[in-house]
Amino acid sequence: MKRLSFFVVFALISVATFAQQALWGTQNIISPEIHPDNTVTFRFLAPKAIRVQVIGDFLPKQQIETPFGPGEADGTADLKERKEGVWEYTTPEPLPSELYSYSFIVDGVKTTDPNNVYLNRDVASVTNIFIIKGGQGDLYSVNDVPHGTLAHRWYESPTLGINRRITIYTPAGYENSGEKYPVLYLLHGMGGDEEAWITLGRTVQIMDNLIARGEAEPMIVVMPNGNVDQEAAPGESDLGLVKPNMRLPHTMEGSMEQSFPDIVKFIESNYRVQKKKAGRAIAGLSMGGFHSLHISKQYPDLFDYVGLFSAAIWPDKEASSPIYQDMEGKLKTQFGKHPKLYWIAIGKTDFLYKDNVKYRQTLDEHAYPYEYYESDGGHIWKNWRIYLSKFAPMLFK
Amino acid sequence: MKRLSFFVVFALISVATFAQQALWGTQNIISPEIHPDNTVTFRFLAPKAIRVQVIGDFLPKQQIETPFGPGEADGTADLKERKEGVWEYTTPEPLPSELYSYSFIVDGVKTTDPNNVYLNRDVASVTNIFIIKGGQGDLYSVNDVPHGTLAHRWYESPTLGINRRITIYTPAGYENSGEKYPVLYLLHGMGGDEEAWITLGRTVQIMDNLIARGEAEPMIVVMPNGNVDQEAAPGESDLGLVKPNMRLPHTMEGSMEQSFPDIVKFIESNYRVQKKKAGRAIAGLSMGGFHSLHISKQYPDLFDYVGLFSAAIWPDKEASSPIYQDMEGKLKTQFGKHPKLYWIAIGKTDFLYKDNVKYRQTLDEHAYPYEYYESDGGHIWKNWRIYLSKFAPMLFK
Repeated sequence: MKRLSFFVVFALISVATFAQQALWGTQNIISPEIHPDNTVTFRFLAPKAIRVQVIGDFLPKQQIETPFGPGEADGTADLKERKEGVWEYTTPEPLPSELYSYSFIVDGVKTTDPNNVYLNRDVASVTNIFIIKGGQGDLYSVNDVPHGTLAHRWYESPTLGINRRITIYTPAGYENSGEKYPVLYLLHGMGGDEEAWITLGRTVQIMDNLIARGEAEPMIVVMPNGNVDQEAAPGESDLGLVKPNMRLPHTMEGSMEQSFPDIVKFIESNYRVQKKKAGRAIAGLSMGGFHSLHISKQYPDLFDYVGLFSAAIWPDKEASSPIYQDMEGKLKTQFGKHPKLYWIAIGKTDFLYKDNVKYRQTLDEHAYPYEYYESDGGHIWKNWRIYLSKFAPMLFK
Repeated sequence: MKRLSFFVVFALISVATFAQQALWGTQNIISPEIHPDNTVTFRFLAPKAIRVQVIGDFLPKQQIETPFGPGEADGTADLKERKEGVWEYTTPEPLPSELYSYSFIVDGVKTTDPNNVYLNRDVASVTNIFIIKGGQGDLYSVNDVPHGTLAHRWYESPTLGINRRITIYTPAGYENSGEKYPVLYLLHGMGGDEEAWITLGRTVQIMDNLIARGEAEPMIVVMPNGNVDQEAAPGESDLGLVKPNMRLPHTMEGSMEQSFPDIVKFIESNYRVQKKKAGRAIAGLSMGGFHSLHISKQYPDLFDYVGLFSAAIWPDKEASSPIYQDMEGKLKTQFGKHPKLYWIAIGKTDFLYKDNVKYRQTLDEHAYPYEYYESDGGHIWKNWRIYLSKFAPMLFK
C-alpha cells in the first residue's frame, strides 16, 4: 500500500463498516422521522418478519391482565411492510410537544430501534426516546443557551459508613462568579439512582432552559442516591455490571433520612452556597417524595421549600425508625416555622392519589398552608418532568 | 382503596410492570451470565424465532466481502433453543479478561440484549458490553478505590467563535487539595466526540485504578470534542437528537489544531494545574493521534509528553492549512526541545500500520527519539484502552 491519504483509506474502512451494518440491517434508515407537522414515522428493517409493532407512551394505553386484576400498559401499533423489508408506521395525528419513549416488537420480541441511539434506562428496561418541540418538549431539549456543568462526584457518608456517588448540576456562570447559590436537593424514586433525574428527568436541560428564560433563579441541583445500600447507580460501583433491581433493601426505613445531613454538609463545605433555610429546597418523586416529606419535617430548620411529586406518604408499619414517630408533632414544628413553599403534585390516575388526598386532609385539618397541583396521568416520568418545570420557578424568589 | 402501605401498592404496580415485561419477554433471564471459570452464557427469549445468533468481538472474526475486496467483521455463533423459547449459547472456552461488546441477530435482525442495560454507542451503533475480570478487565471495572470526579462542562472557543462541551476528569482528592496537577489532553477519533473516551474508553475507571495502584500520577484528564463543527456530542447540542455521522466537515483541515490553545487556556484559568511543559501531555487515537501529532509540533513548548495511538499521520493533500506546512522544520523544532516522551502505538493489523512504519522511518532518519509499542489487532477500542493504560503510567514522573 502506498501512502494513501487518510480519507481514502478511511473510505475503505467505512465501506467495510457499512457492509457489516447492512448485514445487520441498520443502514440508511431514518427512524423516528419527525415531520414538520409533528406526525412521526417509525421505520424498522426486518425482511423476514411476520409482524412488527411499535410500543410507546404516545399510543392509546392498552388494558392488560395482572394477577391482581386489570392493569394498563403502553399501547402498540402495527407497522406495515414497505419495499425492501422496511416496515413503517406513521402516527395518524401530530403529537403534542413532549419527550416520548418507545420500542419495537418484532414477532413478539421487544427490541430497541437500531436507527436511534438515544436511549433511556428505567430500572432494568431500556427504551428509545424522541422529543417533539414547540411546547413542553422545548424545556427538555438542548437549546442555544448558556449551559451549566454536570458533575459526577463521590462523597463520604459518615452516618452510613460508605462513599457514595452523587450528581451535581451547577448553573452557567457558577465557576466564574463570587456569588453564593441556593441549592435544590432533588430525589429519585424506587428503582432509581443518582442518574435518574439526569436521564429520565432531563434536569440539566430543564434547569438550563428555565434559568436562561429568566423563569428560575440560578441554583445548584444536587441529586443523591436514595438507596442507602447502594454506593452508586448500577454499573458505577464495585458490584459490577449487574442487572438493576426495582427493590433494594433499606430504602424506606429511616436510614436515608438519618444520613441526609451528611449530604448537606458535603455540599455546603464544597460549593459556594447560601447556608440558610431560605437557600435550600428539597423535592422528590414517589419514594423521593416520601424522603422529602420526612427529611423536611425531621430537620425543620433546613428547608424553606418542599416539593412532593407523586409522593409516597405513609411509612410501612414495620418501619420502626424514630424518623417516622410523632409525625403529628413534627409537622406542627415544621409548619410552625413557616416554610415558604410546601408544594404537593400528583396525577389524577396515580396509584398514590388517595394517599395524597388523605395527607392533604391532614394538612387542612391543621390549616398548614401548602400549594397543590394536579395533573392528568399517573405515576410516570412525564409528570415528574412537568412538576420539576413548575416547581423550580417558585424557588428562591 | 383504604390506606394500603406503599409497599403493598408498589407490589401491585410491580406486577403490572412485570406483566408488561413478560409480554416483551425480558423477565427473569440472566444474560450475559459470566461463570466462575470465565466462560459466558448468552440468553435470549424468542419463542417464535427460527434462528438466534450472537455477534461479538470475543468470537473468531468472519470474513466479509466489500466492494473494495475482502473485509473483516465480528464473528457470530448460533444460540440453541432451550425450554420455553429461551435460546442459549455458552462460549466453549473461558474468555480472557477484557471488556467485550456484542449484539444478537434474531432472524436476520440485529437487536440489543434486553436483559443487559449496559450499552456503548460507537458513532451510530449501540451494542451491549460486559467485562471479564481477573486481568486487563480489572482496569476497566469500578473497584473499591478512591474515585475522581467527572464533569461535563462548556467552554468558549474564541478561535472557533462557539461554545463547546468538554469532559474533564479530576482525580480523587483534587477538590480538597492545594496542589497543582498535571494535565493529559486526550483526543478521540473520527466519529467520536467528548464522550467517547469516557464510554468506549473507560477513562474514569482506568485512571481511578491506575492512580489507586500507585502506577500513575494523579492527573487531570481533559477530553475535548475534536470535531470543530460540533458544539457537543450528538444529542447534547441544539441540533437535537440527530443520527450521528462518521464523517463531519472540518475534521482534519487545521481548525482543531489552530483552536487548541483555547482549550489549554480554559483549563489553565479554571483548574489548579501545572502551567508548564512538564505538566502537560497530549494523546489521541486515530484522528486524535493525527491532532496530537500536529498540535504538539505546532506548539513545541506546550507538551512534554505525546502519545499517538493508531494515529493517522499525513494530512490530506487538499488540507492547505499552514498547520500542515513545513512538517520537517516543525518536527526539528519540536524534537530540538527534547520532549520527555514521544510514544507511538499501533496494532499489527491496523489499516494505518504502514503509514506509522513510514512515520517512524522519518523520525529514525533524523534520530528523533521515540518509544514504540506494537499490539495485536487493528483499529479498535480494545487497543486504545490498552494504550491509555500503558501511556498514563509513563507521564509526569
